[in-house]
Amino acid sequence: MTEVVDRPTGPEAAVTSPTAGHGTAAQPAVDVAALGEQLLGKWAESRRQSRTLAGDPALHKIEGLTHTEHRTRAFGQLKYLVDNNAVQRAFPAALGGADDHGGNVARFEELVTADPSLQIKAGVQWGLFGSAVMHLGTQEHHNKWLPGIMSLEIPGCFAMTETGHGSDVASIATTATYNAETQEFVVHTPFRAAWKDYIGNAAIDGLAAVVFAQLVTQGVNHGVHAFYLNLRDPETKEFLPGIGGEDDGVKGGLNGIDNGRLHFDNVRIPRTNLLNRYGDVAPDGTYTSSIASPGRRFFTMLGTLVQGRVSLDGAAVAASKVALTAAIRYATERRQFNASSHTDEEVLLDYQRHQRRLFTRLATTYAAGFAHEQLLQKFDDVFSGAHDTDEDRQDLETLAAALKPLSTWHALDTLQECREACGGAGFLIENRFASLRADLDVYVTFEGDNTVLLQLVAKRLLADYAKEFRNVDFGVLARYVVAQATGVAIHRTGLRQVAQFVADTGSVQKAAIALRDEEGQRALLTDRIQTMVADVGAALKGANKLPVEKGAALFNQHQNELIDAAQAHAELLQWEAFTEALEDATDPGTKRVLTWLRDLFGLSLIEKNLSWYLMNGRLSMQRARTVGDYINRLLVKIRPHALDLVDAFGYGDEHVRASIATGAEKTRQDEARAYVTAQRASGNAPVDEKVLLARTSAGGRSQRN
Amino acid sequence: MTEVVDRPTGPEAAVTSPTAGHGTAAQPAVDVAALGEQLLGKWAESRRQSRTLAGDPALHKIEGLTHTEHRTRAFGQLKYLVDNNAVQRAFPAALGGADDHGGNVARFEELVTADPSLQIKAGVQWGLFGSAVMHLGTQEHHNKWLPGIMSLEIPGCFAMTETGHGSDVASIATTATYNAETQEFVVHTPFRAAWKDYIGNAAIDGLAAVVFAQLVTQGVNHGVHAFYLNLRDPETKEFLPGIGGEDDGVKGGLNGIDNGRLHFDNVRIPRTNLLNRYGDVAPDGTYTSSIASPGRRFFTMLGTLVQGRVSLDGAAVAASKVALTAAIRYATERRQFNASSHTDEEVLLDYQRHQRRLFTRLATTYAAGFAHEQLLQKFDDVFSGAHDTDEDRQDLETLAAALKPLSTWHALDTLQECREACGGAGFLIENRFASLRADLDVYVTFEGDNTVLLQLVAKRLLADYAKEFRNVDFGVLARYVVAQATGVAIHRTGLRQVAQFVADTGSVQKAAIALRDEEGQRALLTDRIQTMVADVGAALKGANKLPVEKGAALFNQHQNELIDAAQAHAELLQWEAFTEALEDATDPGTKRVLTWLRDLFGLSLIEKNLSWYLMNGRLSMQRARTVGDYINRLLVKIRPHALDLVDAFGYGDEHVRASIATGAEKTRQDEARAYVTAQRASGNAPVDEKVLLARTSAGGRSQRN
Repeated sequence: MTEVVDRPTGPEAAVTSPTAGHGTAAQPAVDVAALGEQLLGKWAESRRQSRTLAGDPALHKIEGLTHTEHRTRAFGQLKYLVDNNAVQRAFPAALGGADDHGGNVARFEELVTADPSLQIKAGVQWGLFGSAVMHLGTQEHHNKWLPGIMSLEIPGCFAMTETGHGSDVASIATTATYNAETQEFVVHTPFRAAWKDYIGNAAIDGLAAVVFAQLVTQGVNHGVHAFYLNLRDPETKEFLPGIGGEDDGVKGGLNGIDNGRLHFDNVRIPRTNLLNRYGDVAPDGTYTSSIASPGRRFFTMLGTLVQGRVSLDGAAVAASKVALTAAIRYATERRQFNASSHTDEEVLLDYQRHQRRLFTRLATTYAAGFAHEQLLQKFDDVFSGAHDTDEDRQDLETLAAALKPLSTWHALDTLQECREACGGAGFLIENRFASLRADLDVYVTFEGDNTVLLQLVAKRLLADYAKEFRNVDFGVLARYVVAQATGVAIHRTGLRQVAQFVADTGSVQKAAIALRDEEGQRALLTDRIQTMVADVGAALKGANKLPVEKGAALFNQHQNELIDAAQAHAELLQWEAFTEALEDATDPGTKRVLTWLRDLFGLSLIEKNLSWYLMNGRLSMQRARTVGDYINRLLVKIRPHALDLVDAFGYGDEHVRASIATGAEKTRQDEARAYVTAQRASGNAPVDEKVLLARTSAGGRSQRN
Repeated sequence: MTEVVDRPTGPEAAVTSPTAGHGTAAQPAVDVAALGEQLLGKWAESRRQSRTLAGDPALHKIEGLTHTEHRTRAFGQLKYLVDNNAVQRAFPAALGGADDHGGNVARFEELVTADPSLQIKAGVQWGLFGSAVMHLGTQEHHNKWLPGIMSLEIPGCFAMTETGHGSDVASIATTATYNAETQEFVVHTPFRAAWKDYIGNAAIDGLAAVVFAQLVTQGVNHGVHAFYLNLRDPETKEFLPGIGGEDDGVKGGLNGIDNGRLHFDNVRIPRTNLLNRYGDVAPDGTYTSSIASPGRRFFTMLGTLVQGRVSLDGAAVAASKVALTAAIRYATERRQFNASSHTDEEVLLDYQRHQRRLFTRLATTYAAGFAHEQLLQKFDDVFSGAHDTDEDRQDLETLAAALKPLSTWHALDTLQECREACGGAGFLIENRFASLRADLDVYVTFEGDNTVLLQLVAKRLLADYAKEFRNVDFGVLARYVVAQATGVAIHRTGLRQVAQFVADTGSVQKAAIALRDEEGQRALLTDRIQTMVADVGAALKGANKLPVEKGAALFNQHQNELIDAAQAHAELLQWEAFTEALEDATDPGTKRVLTWLRDLFGLSLIEKNLSWYLMNGRLSMQRARTVGDYINRLLVKIRPHALDLVDAFGYGDEHVRASIATGAEKTRQDEARAYVTAQRASGNAPVDEKVLLARTSAGGRSQRN
């Protein structure tokens, strides 16, 4: 195999030899407390309080309940949250809240460790239903409904999605037609495809709903607006006249939530039930809006949805942390197979493949966590009003649309890999991987289908590209756009490949240094996105001038590339966030280990897309061949710190709740070892037939006493 | 983008223009009935009968049951199978069976569409428990126990795995010590880690068990043997004296099976309860075996396990087929987003990314299905005795160890992708993806952990390599070994890359032809495995002569590469099986479409490992850059035949049972379209605000009448 500069071939070597690449020669050692504090981030206190609550058995998922029992339990848990003042923080201070948007989301995220159903049901009630009243309604609406929403007196629904239209909200078909004579809106479902569907709280608990519908007045459709409707009689819990529905039944997970369908047969509501912050209808039917463009108005109203995406991003990271804590703890104890009969069996985490499976995901989890912290900061800036320009909102949307897909897919991947890495034990619900995975499954398609979200990001990238690479200039997003775009022309001719090929020949050591160099990784990751976007941009040039269908067809021919580019962009955001976080790691030993982990993340991204770097002449063949080896060396370096790195996540047994992560495995092994030792000492241990045969074939020279 | 030879850019073009590459100029069109017959394979009639049974609602999974209710139902379903003569075929004709091993497994596989719990519970009873008595026991055992096992009078367990040892069966710690005075074996669990665990039928239903334990007699441990034990009183269902256990509780899936733990406190059983086909103990305690080597004896006894792996391989393929049938049917109806307001929304399956997501998996499913048919044939050859040499058994083991990991992982991946491709609807249990996925999850770690199995394959590859590339000479496995091994030396010097780089420059068209050429694909796939194995082989040279721990460490440094090589080998087996199947497709139009699908499979494999081909000088940069485009063109060609390709799987609504695959979506769209049309015709349709604004900005020139 190719020789690279690094020396260490085992954990001991890694501990004693400084690496030349990073300029930090400190002893690698994780200060778990300090790193833990860093990971808790700006809303550390909120997270701590929420974790304390999430550790309470009253909020824990009980496995094996029917979906009916689980729903009842989850509803009770919402009341428990109310009683413990855990839900008000985002609401106005005047109504008992704290106007604390970032802290509220941080709290919400941590609830995933208790029961994702509880989390998402709370999200439906306060994050969607309550938030819609708060952000789309005005003072009168706040005073009238928020207290009941906050206290759970009014359990409610966020009725946006329809059977016929999910992520494409603009196309929903429910109508709210204004009747100036009665000064009422008539909310109506014109056909089956327009039934509201997958709506949390709709099957059982919802007494009211914010219903999204096409607002029609004076013969004009002003697009999607939000309306407040009462759904059920608070006493009988029966649907009010004109309202009907259906239970969505059992789902792949999140069965503590009563998702259902709703339909409306000319239901009349007062004019003032229109949540009129961004658009209003006067008694005479005149429509007015502070936002002239219907398109911009639509996106402004939908902007409140971003909170859901931010929250899911953080919840997915939290779930990944819990899973890795359990799987890595178990892997440091569990032993399987031995290299020889003379030694103990190998600890799972000493196997190279096991390290690959778990450490690459550990690195990604760190990256996703740091990126989430930046997203949450951005979210708080916008929602607190500290930085709330149109551009801020757009950037927030793009950032959330980029990060939520990666972190939610990553959570599923991590939960599954952890489950498999724990074998049959991983499949038992008592170890929670399968349960969490089932519950988090839908995170990848709700609050915006991941594939659709990445296309939004891609469109933004293309739009920025069209602005002649003008810098979008905010936080981490700024970094991706590199000033020069020369690569495009070069790789077509093949000149660059040949040049680099020649330059790199015989210079493998230099190549390895470049790969683990921060600037080297950044250049590779950035260049790729820029080139991909430029390539697609060039291919789509003039698509706008084509007939609509031909333009769409051309776009579709590059859809796969576009989504790949958006994903690469999101990965770079994660990498940049991780790299920035290194600066905040003040303890040199911790920084050294974290840098390895960041390198593992960066190199894993480069390895995943190695073919792109090769066929676009960004890496020579020799250089590319060092990537795998370098990753393998990083795994060995990280191995001694793996437990510290998951301990720093700060989740206690009350959050992990996996019997394999309790030390039980070590206890069993100790007992087994003691038994074997005692049996040998007693002289009663049976002789192995193989040993007997070896003795015979060795001419009777016994190797035992 | 790079220009390649192929013309078509749309389905129409694909239909009318012959491709130069394959030499078949027939109109591409799938003969669904003929292809369906081909897919049913040698045991078509068995599959048909089993599908009829699996379509019976009595055998269908009822969702939302508690695990207790589900267990009761599954046990009742086993009786239903008995009553319908569905379980006896593998057993001896003398006892009412048919000695039909291949047909029996084919039947078993099809049951997955009814309920995987039912399937695996049947597998525990007849495929593991019954098979162990049949294959490891002798005539007396057959006569004594098989009738009761076949009739379900004796529900039983296959008690092999222990909490402390799963895939490493040789290390189990339960002992069966012979006592010559009483002529009994004493079965004993020495410590907690030696409890039998994850044992199907152990928690509730099992009255008896085949228990695997270290056989000790006259002070010698002869290794793992199988013993027949009664577990529970048939009347009271209580454990017999000395036997205890625990319920494994709720699992990630398969909750119709009562998995549990068992432990034994010096339980005495008659000497004759040793299943003594391969090893026996005389009344005086003398051990005898027809197989002198303890290692070979162990592997021979464990050989019966291969049936489980073969069955899971086929069941995983069947589940993938059902999922793709539902997702592709839905994707041909469901519309989301439109390119312009003038046209209908786009059908999901016309989106490039959607095609990528589903068609690549469709191609892999075909490949896995054809490979499974070969595996099943090999299994039947061995178990029927038609071709049952030691080498046949080893080849069968290797083939099963190679294919089972790929197909079971593929099933999970396919079920998840299909679930996501159907959005929120995919998450509803009524559409079954999430349910099947949860049940099939454990297929990747039971009956041999996939990662462990691939290492067995890798060891076989290394062993073959060590025999100086001597051909292992059976069926598809034969193909991978190429006579020359020159590549190893060449890619080290970089000579070959330069040579090919120069040769390919300006010859992109030729490159594209080579990639879609059958021999081109074969050469690329084969070369990779050979080189990977040779590389690792060279790196490990002399490892045997190192001190044990150093040798193990060296091996571990290449574990990841070894597993990758084994996977590449298994993928080639699938590709070869698909390619052989093309010969059996007699209808030219069908053959043409299938060839595209095979190419898609082959090119997807090459794309996945493109970096390897590039950095080892097997593909030039230019050639590599054509792979993605060529795949995109294949997607477009396959698109018009997608429905036919899933219809050929032959599963009816009674097997698919997904409400999204029933045409309901189209019905809803038709209703919505009719509503909009009628509204427009009535003149009462509201005007869109955007249209109104456009009119205004166009100076009041109305574009509507």
